[in-house]
Amino acid sequence: MPMEREGQTRRVTSHDIARLANVSQATVSRVLTGKSGVAPERRDRVLWALEQTGYRRNAAATAMRTGRTRTAAVVVSDVRNPFYPELLATLGSELAAHDYRMILWETGAGEDHAAAAVREHLVDGLLFCTAMPGSPALAAARSAGVPVVLLNRTLPDAGVDQVSGDNHAAAATVAGHLLAAGHEHLALVTGPADASTSEERAEGFRSVVRAAGVRWLEVAGDFSHDTARTLGHELLRGQRHPSAVFCVNDLTAFGVLNAATACGRSVPQDVAVVGFDDIPMAAWERLALTTVRQPIAEMAHHAVQRLVARLEGDDSPPTHRRLPCTLVVRDSTGGASPIRDA
Amino acid sequence: MPMEREGQTRRVTSHDIARLANVSQATVSRVLTGKSGVAPERRDRVLWALEQTGYRRNAAATAMRTGRTRTAAVVVSDVRNPFYPELLATLGSELAAHDYRMILWETGAGEDHAAAAVREHLVDGLLFCTAMPGSPALAAARSAGVPVVLLNRTLPDAGVDQVSGDNHAAAATVAGHLLAAGHEHLALVTGPADASTSEERAEGFRSVVRAAGVRWLEVAGDFSHDTARTLGHELLRGQRHPSAVFCVNDLTAFGVLNAATACGRSVPQDVAVVGFDDIPMAAWERLALTTVRQPIAEMAHHAVQRLVARLEGDDSPPTHRRLPCTLVVRDSTGGASPIRDA
Repeated sequence: MPMEREGQTRRVTSHDIARLANVSQATVSRVLTGKSGVAPERRDRVLWALEQTGYRRNAAATAMRTGRTRTAAVVVSDVRNPFYPELLATLGSELAAHDYRMILWETGAGEDHAAAAVREHLVDGLLFCTAMPGSPALAAARSAGVPVVLLNRTLPDAGVDQVSGDNHAAAATVAGHLLAAGHEHLALVTGPADASTSEERAEGFRSVVRAAGVRWLEVAGDFSHDTARTLGHELLRGQRHPSAVFCVNDLTAFGVLNAATACGRSVPQDVAVVGFDDIPMAAWERLALTTVRQPIAEMAHHAVQRLVARLEGDDSPPTHRRLPCTLVVRDSTGGASPIRDA
Repeated sequence: MPMEREGQTRRVTSHDIARLANVSQATVSRVLTGKSGVAPERRDRVLWALEQTGYRRNAAATAMRTGRTRTAAVVVSDVRNPFYPELLATLGSELAAHDYRMILWETGAGEDHAAAAVREHLVDGLLFCTAMPGSPALAAARSAGVPVVLLNRTLPDAGVDQVSGDNHAAAATVAGHLLAAGHEHLALVTGPADASTSEERAEGFRSVVRAAGVRWLEVAGDFSHDTARTLGHELLRGQRHPSAVFCVNDLTAFGVLNAATACGRSVPQDVAVVGFDDIPMAAWERLALTTVRQPIAEMAHHAVQRLVARLEGDDSPPTHRRLPCTLVVRDSTGGASPIRDA
């Protein structure tokens, strides 16, 4: 039943679709906007009618009319760090529950595109997971008045809602765990100096170790496995190597674990290793990493709540929510029993 | 210099921006559309002028005028499988080089949203990395006439361009590698039955093993680590366990490696393990997985080339490009020397 006949180009309406599919216009609308709650059999009839008629709902026209795209962008700097895909999986379902589409932008190559898209109001709001001072997309969002929530990495005086783990307290717990096991030759592998997560975790660790009067060695990584593997090799190949290494994220810790294997050092007997994030592979038998579990789902939930509230007009002062984290002890620091007893 | 004065709301034009920033209108346009090739100092002046005036280029208006969003969507089913972030990183830079923005949709929770967005022409084209028969977003794209390229997973008679690794040939090579090492108790861990990658790899493996008159055991996984770890435990805990296991992707192989560790089996002495993809962690010392390297960057390059050609009006018959893959031998099958000599 083609609705466009020779010499006749009447525009197909959603009313036509509803009649053809034998459903209500509300049902057609639910299918068109991707809402749930339509029985599969009815949904199939609507899709069939859409195909028969070649109907096109014009998103550009809707966006011009409503000023809304119902799209939220998530910005991350490195989707190859498995922490971010974990966060994205929860953000996607939380946003869908509020009837928002999620799109992902990776900074770097895409950052100028993202900034341009924000300026053009192609998205209603932004969840920024890897904020750094001077991020172009962040600056664009703020100058365009697009609501922003900083998630995971935060910025002082950002003037927007922020949600993060309590990095400082959790890293202090890590330092206590290593000191209690009797370690006196400690090393710390940090991330980029501008990243709040790295700085807060490093400072939490330093504060406890300093108070205990123990000296520590410090090297600067970049959150990546490969850099950490090179640094780990430098740290561990000599005879007087550290007996414990705290890394500000799990990927960095895996780099040090692999370097230990390459140098013939046993973990945890020769060197204990601790990470931060508790990404799923930290629990793998081959890696068995002691680390800090961030409450990823809870963080994503709070960030989406704040963004949706702002999109609905909440203009209360910005909040910064820091969620508590948990130390998860695995084989890389000797499992449940302290190293001294091993 | 606010352009909106009391009692006066003249619309700010890009001409105003150019004058205020002391650059050409072409430069303003380049900055607004996120193109490269603008000197940082000039770009900063344009951004400053945009902020001063509160200028908004309206993407919805542009999209209505041109019928184009210059946005391509990449659809994947599980961004937590590290293969996809690797692919995304290359797709993002390839698309940016053609002046297209990339957005990511994950199927599952987001699939209906993606289908709706495609029907609304919010994106110009679609790169589908995890096609399955009956994918709603794929059906929506085809009925809406939005160009689609299938990348990685393919579908018979899809009627669109497809780019994949030569899965059948590569898996046949894996079977030859294991048979040459003298293995006679083989196991195969597949993925979902509908996924072309799993089916082609399984069939390539079977064809060689069958021809050699060697029997093999087969179990169905789902591409995930956790399912594979459970299956691996079943396979390896008994005394008469397989001496070699081929897994249709790397995550599955890591699950079997971890199960081997949990069962106290040495790799490769008690059991050899082979994966498929060569994601970066396959090279980690703690995992050291023999696997098949897919030419990820080349696959992404060809897929973007095809999509851009279609967007520019190429209506030649659809092509299916299969790119050759390479066997990478690591410790999980005994490294460079065959197991028989170990």
